[in-house]
Amino acid sequence: MNKGRMNIICSDLEGVFVPEIWINVALRTGIEELKLTTRDISDYDVLMKRRLSILKQHGLKIGDITSVIAAMEPLAGARELLDWIRGRSQIIVVSDTFTQFAGPLMKKLGWPTLFCHTLTIGPDGTVEGYNLRQPEGKKRTVQALQGLNYRVVAFGDSYNDVGMLQQAEVGILFRPPENVIREYPQFPVTHDYTALRQLLQAELDK
Amino acid sequence: MNKGRMNIICSDLEGVFVPEIWINVALRTGIEELKLTTRDISDYDVLMKRRLSILKQHGLKIGDITSVIAAMEPLAGARELLDWIRGRSQIIVVSDTFTQFAGPLMKKLGWPTLFCHTLTIGPDGTVEGYNLRQPEGKKRTVQALQGLNYRVVAFGDSYNDVGMLQQAEVGILFRPPENVIREYPQFPVTHDYTALRQLLQAELDK
Repeated sequence: MNKGRMNIICSDLEGVFVPEIWINVALRTGIEELKLTTRDISDYDVLMKRRLSILKQHGLKIGDITSVIAAMEPLAGARELLDWIRGRSQIIVVSDTFTQFAGPLMKKLGWPTLFCHTLTIGPDGTVEGYNLRQPEGKKRTVQALQGLNYRVVAFGDSYNDVGMLQQAEVGILFRPPENVIREYPQFPVTHDYTALRQLLQAELDK
Repeated sequence: MNKGRMNIICSDLEGVFVPEIWINVALRTGIEELKLTTRDISDYDVLMKRRLSILKQHGLKIGDITSVIAAMEPLAGARELLDWIRGRSQIIVVSDTFTQFAGPLMKKLGWPTLFCHTLTIGPDGTVEGYNLRQPEGKKRTVQALQGLNYRVVAFGDSYNDVGMLQQAEVGILFRPPENVIREYPQFPVTHDYTALRQLLQAELDK
């Protein structure tokens, strides 16, 4: 590494530190179709338009969704892993979730920095639309950090993380579905926080 | 703002959330000359080379400095302000301090994300040199975030923050010395967290 270069970690949120939010909304509301995630439909715009149309069709408003999210907990050990990382390096969580959803879970995680998107909410609480902060937000975050002379170690679980993992100096898969493992054999695969922590430690020592 | 654009906050560390580290080292060690900060010498390289030469001259090692830092506390109300900010937006603390110094204070602040630099420590604990991650690190952090479609609200207290405040969409001075107020009359000046919080709230509402 050049003299001033430093390590930094970028990670996904859902599936890595917290459960998949939409799957939980689907379970609570009984609307099976809301279980679709980027694991199933890799085009995020197609996926989100489908979700918003389902919400509308069932008359679900922002309050119905945030009440489900407020009852959710981070994955067991997530807070401890985050604190371990923050004691050794810096981490930016980069997610395709929305500020209106993330708050209660981020608080339970001790407020790690989150780069995500916003929803447009109507006066009656209807979720009217979603606003991506920018296309390819995960990959571009890695590029921005590299421009600040950071060496980026990234981990995520799914299709929408691949751009981030490819752009990073080191990409690690955490509990990915089988099709992602098959399509991207270049990334090491971890299935629990202990193995993930070992890989991160080895990279932070470099 | 364009549809997906989001607010983010960038801040200084010393003088804003924690006391000036070198001044505290000077007080504890009785070495008057270590009290110099970027408030006195605006060229950071000149300042740091002076500091390292003073440490060498007095035989002070990394352990002597970190033991002083470990006994320091954040400014009263700093943690509460940070938690307030993190409940409403995101914050990146951008500092000219070093990872070897910052740890204990960042833990007391609940691990906000910190962009800073590193020291080179010899096998016997001698502080052999310092490694800036990059020149103009504060300003470049703001530029990188703007490239990620963030509108940046920045605050800091001194000369080395001016590049960051100028580059940000909104720059705020917090407890600056008189000469900085005189030279940069364009920035609003706050003297306590209550006033700072009000300015931040007004910007986050935009």
